[in-house]
Amino acid sequence: MALLTASRRISSSTSATTLRYAYFRSFLTAFREERDTFGPIQVPSDKLWGAQTQRSLQNFDIGGEREQMPEPIIRAFGVLKKCAAKVNMDYGLDPTIGKAIMQAAQEVSEGKLNDQFPLVIWQTGSGTQSNMNANEVIANRASEILGHKRGEKFVHPNDHVNRSQSSNDTFPTVMHIASAVEINSSFIPKLKQLQTSLESKSFEFKDIIKIGRTHTQDATPLTLGQEFSGYTTQVKYGLDRVMCTLPRMYQLAQGGTAVGTGLNTKKGFDVKIANAVAEETNLPFITAENKFEALAAHDAFVETSGALNTVSVSLMKIANDIRLLGSGPRCGLGELILPENEPGSSIMPGKVNPTQCEALTMVCAQVMGNHVAITVGGSNGHFELNVYKPMIASGLLRSLRLLGDASASFEKNCVRGIQANRERISKLLHESLMLVTSLNPKIGYDNAAAVAKKAHKEGSTLKDAALMLGVLTSEEFDQLVVPEKMIGPSD
Amino acid sequence: MALLTASRRISSSTSATTLRYAYFRSFLTAFREERDTFGPIQVPSDKLWGAQTQRSLQNFDIGGEREQMPEPIIRAFGVLKKCAAKVNMDYGLDPTIGKAIMQAAQEVSEGKLNDQFPLVIWQTGSGTQSNMNANEVIANRASEILGHKRGEKFVHPNDHVNRSQSSNDTFPTVMHIASAVEINSSFIPKLKQLQTSLESKSFEFKDIIKIGRTHTQDATPLTLGQEFSGYTTQVKYGLDRVMCTLPRMYQLAQGGTAVGTGLNTKKGFDVKIANAVAEETNLPFITAENKFEALAAHDAFVETSGALNTVSVSLMKIANDIRLLGSGPRCGLGELILPENEPGSSIMPGKVNPTQCEALTMVCAQVMGNHVAITVGGSNGHFELNVYKPMIASGLLRSLRLLGDASASFEKNCVRGIQANRERISKLLHESLMLVTSLNPKIGYDNAAAVAKKAHKEGSTLKDAALMLGVLTSEEFDQLVVPEKMIGPSD
Amino acid sequence: MALLTASRRISSSTSATTLRYAYFRSFLTAFREERDTFGPIQVPSDKLWGAQTQRSLQNFDIGGEREQMPEPIIRAFGVLKKCAAKVNMDYGLDPTIGKAIMQAAQEVSEGKLNDQFPLVIWQTGSGTQSNMNANEVIANRASEILGHKRGEKFVHPNDHVNRSQSSNDTFPTVMHIASAVEINSSFIPKLKQLQTSLESKSFEFKDIIKIGRTHTQDATPLTLGQEFSGYTTQVKYGLDRVMCTLPRMYQLAQGGTAVGTGLNTKKGFDVKIANAVAEETNLPFITAENKFEALAAHDAFVETSGALNTVSVSLMKIANDIRLLGSGPRCGLGELILPENEPGSSIMPGKVNPTQCEALTMVCAQVMGNHVAITVGGSNGHFELNVYKPMIASGLLRSLRLLGDASASFEKNCVRGIQANRERISKLLHESLMLVTSLNPKIGYDNAAAVAKKAHKEGSTLKDAALMLGVLTSEEFDQLVVPEKMIGPSD
Amino acid sequence: MALLTASRRISSSTSATTLRYAYFRSFLTAFREERDTFGPIQVPSDKLWGAQTQRSLQNFDIGGEREQMPEPIIRAFGVLKKCAAKVNMDYGLDPTIGKAIMQAAQEVSEGKLNDQFPLVIWQTGSGTQSNMNANEVIANRASEILGHKRGEKFVHPNDHVNRSQSSNDTFPTVMHIASAVEINSSFIPKLKQLQTSLESKSFEFKDIIKIGRTHTQDATPLTLGQEFSGYTTQVKYGLDRVMCTLPRMYQLAQGGTAVGTGLNTKKGFDVKIANAVAEETNLPFITAENKFEALAAHDAFVETSGALNTVSVSLMKIANDIRLLGSGPRCGLGELILPENEPGSSIMPGKVNPTQCEALTMVCAQVMGNHVAITVGGSNGHFELNVYKPMIASGLLRSLRLLGDASASFEKNCVRGIQANRERISKLLHESLMLVTSLNPKIGYDNAAAVAKKAHKEGSTLKDAALMLGVLTSEEFDQLVVPEKMIGPSD
Repeated sequence: MALLTASRRISSSTSATTLRYAYFRSFLTAFREERDTFGPIQVPSDKLWGAQTQRSLQNFDIGGEREQMPEPIIRAFGVLKKCAAKVNMDYGLDPTIGKAIMQAAQEVSEGKLNDQFPLVIWQTGSGTQSNMNANEVIANRASEILGHKRGEKFVHPNDHVNRSQSSNDTFPTVMHIASAVEINSSFIPKLKQLQTSLESKSFEFKDIIKIGRTHTQDATPLTLGQEFSGYTTQVKYGLDRVMCTLPRMYQLAQGGTAVGTGLNTKKGFDVKIANAVAEETNLPFITAENKFEALAAHDAFVETSGALNTVSVSLMKIANDIRLLGSGPRCGLGELILPENEPGSSIMPGKVNPTQCEALTMVCAQVMGNHVAITVGGSNGHFELNVYKPMIASGLLRSLRLLGDASASFEKNCVRGIQANRERISKLLHESLMLVTSLNPKIGYDNAAAVAKKAHKEGSTLKDAALMLGVLTSEEFDQLVVPEKMIGPSD
Repeated sequence: MALLTASRRISSSTSATTLRYAYFRSFLTAFREERDTFGPIQVPSDKLWGAQTQRSLQNFDIGGEREQMPEPIIRAFGVLKKCAAKVNMDYGLDPTIGKAIMQAAQEVSEGKLNDQFPLVIWQTGSGTQSNMNANEVIANRASEILGHKRGEKFVHPNDHVNRSQSSNDTFPTVMHIASAVEINSSFIPKLKQLQTSLESKSFEFKDIIKIGRTHTQDATPLTLGQEFSGYTTQVKYGLDRVMCTLPRMYQLAQGGTAVGTGLNTKKGFDVKIANAVAEETNLPFITAENKFEALAAHDAFVETSGALNTVSVSLMKIANDIRLLGSGPRCGLGELILPENEPGSSIMPGKVNPTQCEALTMVCAQVMGNHVAITVGGSNGHFELNVYKPMIASGLLRSLRLLGDASASFEKNCVRGIQANRERISKLLHESLMLVTSLNPKIGYDNAAAVAKKAHKEGSTLKDAALMLGVLTSEEFDQLVVPEKMIGPSD
Repeated sequence: MALLTASRRISSSTSATTLRYAYFRSFLTAFREERDTFGPIQVPSDKLWGAQTQRSLQNFDIGGEREQMPEPIIRAFGVLKKCAAKVNMDYGLDPTIGKAIMQAAQEVSEGKLNDQFPLVIWQTGSGTQSNMNANEVIANRASEILGHKRGEKFVHPNDHVNRSQSSNDTFPTVMHIASAVEINSSFIPKLKQLQTSLESKSFEFKDIIKIGRTHTQDATPLTLGQEFSGYTTQVKYGLDRVMCTLPRMYQLAQGGTAVGTGLNTKKGFDVKIANAVAEETNLPFITAENKFEALAAHDAFVETSGALNTVSVSLMKIANDIRLLGSGPRCGLGELILPENEPGSSIMPGKVNPTQCEALTMVCAQVMGNHVAITVGGSNGHFELNVYKPMIASGLLRSLRLLGDASASFEKNCVRGIQANRERISKLLHESLMLVTSLNPKIGYDNAAAVAKKAHKEGSTLKDAALMLGVLTSEEFDQLVVPEKMIGPSD
Repeated sequence: MALLTASRRISSSTSATTLRYAYFRSFLTAFREERDTFGPIQVPSDKLWGAQTQRSLQNFDIGGEREQMPEPIIRAFGVLKKCAAKVNMDYGLDPTIGKAIMQAAQEVSEGKLNDQFPLVIWQTGSGTQSNMNANEVIANRASEILGHKRGEKFVHPNDHVNRSQSSNDTFPTVMHIASAVEINSSFIPKLKQLQTSLESKSFEFKDIIKIGRTHTQDATPLTLGQEFSGYTTQVKYGLDRVMCTLPRMYQLAQGGTAVGTGLNTKKGFDVKIANAVAEETNLPFITAENKFEALAAHDAFVETSGALNTVSVSLMKIANDIRLLGSGPRCGLGELILPENEPGSSIMPGKVNPTQCEALTMVCAQVMGNHVAITVGGSNGHFELNVYKPMIASGLLRSLRLLGDASASFEKNCVRGIQANRERISKLLHESLMLVTSLNPKIGYDNAAAVAKKAHKEGSTLKDAALMLGVLTSEEFDQLVVPEKMIGPSD
């Protein structure tokens, strides 16, 4: 793929027609002929794909390499095609061919044949071409395993690899497999780690009393641990939210074939294949309750994307608070000391830019955007088939990956190393005028207000003002103004 | 309020300063003086509200009457203040005052004092002014009940009505009460009715075989009942999605007071008030697990809004399909006959505009938009208080109301009366070329393709083409091409 | 309308079927019979509307009173129908009838008949029912003017008032009229006032040097005036952006009739009516270059909404900065003193909640949401007619109104009264470590870094640290560290 | 980079910590030491980048290779750094070094050093690390050109390459350069080609009269050419919309340095560099009117993204109409014949899936989503610096690329080859009942309605019904019902 890559890169933002001719002109690349119902077409000899993949490559010159179908989809095709071959052997598929398909599909599921999947997201909205890409690659690879040549179709992409299947049910199936696997293997563990880390900070900071802020204005105190407990709860509920969506994500469309009826399959095929996928992935996949819904709509993706949208909202709030609480070093709030991971300023010590907060909040904004894209795609199906599948799938997978990775990076490179600037926190707390509320019971509302007013006007402390006004003694003040008593309900 | 209304209306899109002076200039309106810490202010004599409400009215001249705080929020304030008085009596509030508050609050909860709540959504982001509006109205009304005058503060808005509360915990509490009540009392029943109606259509149409359509192109057949079963499943799952979010919606912030610590409340106050609200509303409200989260974030609203967004996606798909399937009468698909509720065209019979689909899909688009507004508001809190509360609350309530009402209208005025155009459905099905796939087993793929090709080219039926090509007899054709056998997996 | 209003209000969030029966059951309301092609229907005697309005009222029970078609649309119908009558007289409409229509339409355009327009946004997506509402009300009112009775159709809603028109061209026309009028008469002046006010603050603060902040961290200094000049520029460009969209907003669909062809109009009708509207409104309306585009798409609304979206982004940035710069009074940044419009805290002086910033940013979030709703509606038209018109129109009008009003409120109640806290600004600036960069040329990068490091570590000032390290004298320091020299490029 | 690539790919969705250790463990990769103020760090010997790039690579393990900073940004850095060196020589930069920088930067601008830019979008929100990546690569490459070794800093990344610059002004500058170049060199030409192609179809189809459709229902006729003229106008206005935004996109922040003041630059530097960039790119770049706005906000990007959002709305409408008009072959509308680019169905001729429409509409949905992401990012800046820059830039560039490429693909592989199915169009037109309106003048409204009613009820043609009712003769009917007279206003 080196040549292809190189030519693509050069042509990236200009016309990419160049790219295609590069194949034909090149003295370095050899070709073989592949065929489909449209006739023959030249395919690079070193590639396992066939005619339909090649045609899509030429017809959808949109976005270049960066826009290729995401890897989790490719791997999920490997899983599905392996399971399909296994179940098809139960229904009469020649075991020699079946086993070769299973071996080839296994390689796909392990990511070993990733470079055989050149198609972009922006193809047919059913994902048919990526399904054919998988069928063609697996068929050619299985043929090779059995000692036959590429293009010979000893193992046939349609008749064998795609047997009892239709793009219309395979693509939604791999969408669900890929997403459920990503959620379980990567997203949830990363978010859980973040929750744990925030929670341990909450414990670490449980005795640090600080000024509260509402409307960005000084308010009554709370502990820094309480503040972090709010963040922890947000992440914890975020995980609940994502997990709540899984029952519908575990439903597989496979067995619905072209329009959801299951034409050309045998009774029970759908259940068997869901079981096989469940076994292969160790996740509780089941066959979809209603195949018509499963092909015509992707509400399950809109729903999960909605959960990620909520998680983004939570993380944006948390990262924003942390960067503002860490603002400074001299002219900000300065209550938190964030870990320094890279030079913030070449000369100024203490200028620690909250770069992890920045990466995370940028990701959150992108996830909110992807959610709208997925919403629009989800709302636009027609009749028996939603044709925004590749966009919906790749949008959700991107959101999952980015949100998981950015949470992990934020946890590791920021949260874990956050320190409280106890001195600063204490200084702000004790300078605050909000503590005046503690004087009410003793000196009455009017006197308390007078104390605060005087302190505010003169820029003095509450204590100085109180003593100046002679409303109580120094000892009385110290006895009354005890932030520790202000951080919870009274008995 | 007549004068106010009139002057507002006239000034609607021009300067509204006029409005305020209208009070003072008017010979018809009498005023009384109310006071707050800012000093005295004139309030119309016939109004129960006090100084802080009046100030907000003058400081937030944004959007006019249409933008007033939604009624469910007002009513929920009635519920909350009633419960607070009840619990406060346990903690020592004078029962005479407590009972008068309960009676006044009850009137608010019943919508009897709606016209005493003039404030708009676009006020302080904590909703403080609406909380004070409730406190002031209830205090004055309770004073009257006890034989005292308005403005006298015999029952005090802060010391009595707002006792042990802060705007920072009351407003999120009424947000949750109002939304949970709307969801349970209005939204869910309306959506369930739609689900039931779609399901009964699915049964009614279970034997009508029709052409399937994928990529908007003719595909293999299914029954109209199967098609409607997909819609039914979408709505059913939509209900599941909304209900999945309720556990977090039932959590009440009350008891968190200013920053979540519960300062100025007694231990147990939060639990007692949640119990009282649960009893009053007959819904399983509980006290929020973490009050810091409950004040600083409104992830629960972003989450529920996400569920409504998914429901909108589903309903847009359904309404779109129905209007396209009902397109015609002569030049569209024409498979469905939609009920005619109003003149579509003054002269042309059969031009039945799918107006209910149009209203519903417009609502869906608005709900998607509100979801983005709520997402942006949810992501933007600072520190201990999210200050987008009134926007978030009114956005969700509007989405709930519109989606519920439009679903009910769609169900009643459209779905319920949909009839299948059996003749047209059958004609299209039998003209379709997709049935050719049934010939494969008998005459082979190549011959079948030749038949289809000939029929397509000549515009003839498959049967005519098959007979012309002599590949099978008329009897054989009729025996093979049986759509009834194409609508499910084989044994 | 009192009875209707009352019954609506009571039923607001419950079933509104009640409402309709209220008419029939009521002993207070008398009815007359009106007819359309569907047959007779009862209409309240005191109402000017006719059968089609009444039918819509009954068929679209969605959202209640708050969801009525926005007033600017109603008024624009008045403008259009007046102009249409005028032009129709040129083409042969009986002048007696024509003049009566003009007089009645004038009343509509002045808002005098607002309560005759009860229909909600959520009706047919073409706005046909509101067009008929206008036709019916004007016809009945014109009949009355000519001494005839309501319902008699002496002036006919279709044949006279709607002559040479179709809902399909009138509704887009009033959408454009209403929006262009709002933009010019209200939105632009309000935003301009905000720009002016920010600009005058920029001048007022031009000599106040303050610490800059990047990544929320202390950075090199700038003047407060420079900071406000950035805000001013944002608003100024925002106005440019909105005005850039007007050329397409001034294009009127009128004359396209049902599908854009102009069937049933005379040549030149479209130009004449655009001229008449231009004269009536004093705005440069022209006839749309392509009527097919003007009916089938509302890209012009998506575009203008996009400009408002950008304005919202700007205002959210500005309001956020202002509230953070005004945070405090003791524990925030405290550089700005915001005007105090209402009690922030009952006891704590100086707790000035940035409530105007909050109202404005909530509005910005809503405008961003409306933009998505309008985008979805705009993208979803079918064939010759976009059927999301009422939603698109009311969404844009709401965004215009809210953004204009909130900007005016923000300007008047916040920006105008902002004061710089010079003492605090100066203190922060001089405590900052960023000024160390001025020492580089004199003592070299390494020494400068050592000074900053020492100051940071010991919490001392740069000057103290420099003197302690003995790298320069007090006089030298004062000569070198001159923030005034750091606020622009050097000569 | 082969090793890196390979290891990244394998680790893609699992932990990527592996990746970093791969460097250190590998026996195949040699390393050199690079240093920054944080100390020494190992960098692969074959890489030109330095310490800060390497640090970012390790600290922001988010998303993997697919998420690298987009190529147009890298190339724009080449352009900018070349121009900066050129201008810096005017201000005293050693010409030997200056020229080497120019040569190295030229290589970057030509995409020759793309594989030296490994950093992802999700880094610091100022793009500082990518600016340092450019500085480091260019410095090392320039050093090599001058015969020095990598890491020796003969040409210094900060002192020489970044001279008079700050990340805070370079990154916004490259954002604007990259976007303006993409818009002019790729996006606009592609959209213009689409406009031209639609326009030529409009001419080609100008005499084909067809049924109009409103509310998806049969309406009065228009020509297919008129229908396409609407699409053409949409695209034409879309181009206007994008071009309207360019004046603000051509404004460059360069010269603002850290906070917009221009500290550390000389007067005139900003203008000179804008001129140099304008000359280099042949586009009318100018220096930004207000540098504070140019760093702190990216409203220009939100605005341009808004224009792309509108274009997406237009294209979604067009592509949707085309796929519905091309639906069939037997059971859809079937008025258009779309080019067949790949097998739609293996057996059914005429099943031409509208795959280009699908790719394009998926892209439109993604662009709408990106617009929300950019909006959120744009609204979230703090103080002197918006820190969502890389997300905003890459979002807009992706939207531009996808929308341009998909439009080109749609034009080439779909629009250009669209044929009208004249027979089908004519059949539908003449079967339509809407033509009855032509009979009104002759036989009166009531008789015409009776004809239509009869035809609708009996499924007959209008002519048959008219003859049966005896309201006119066959000759009269043919004379009156002339669709050609229904496609425009009358004289």
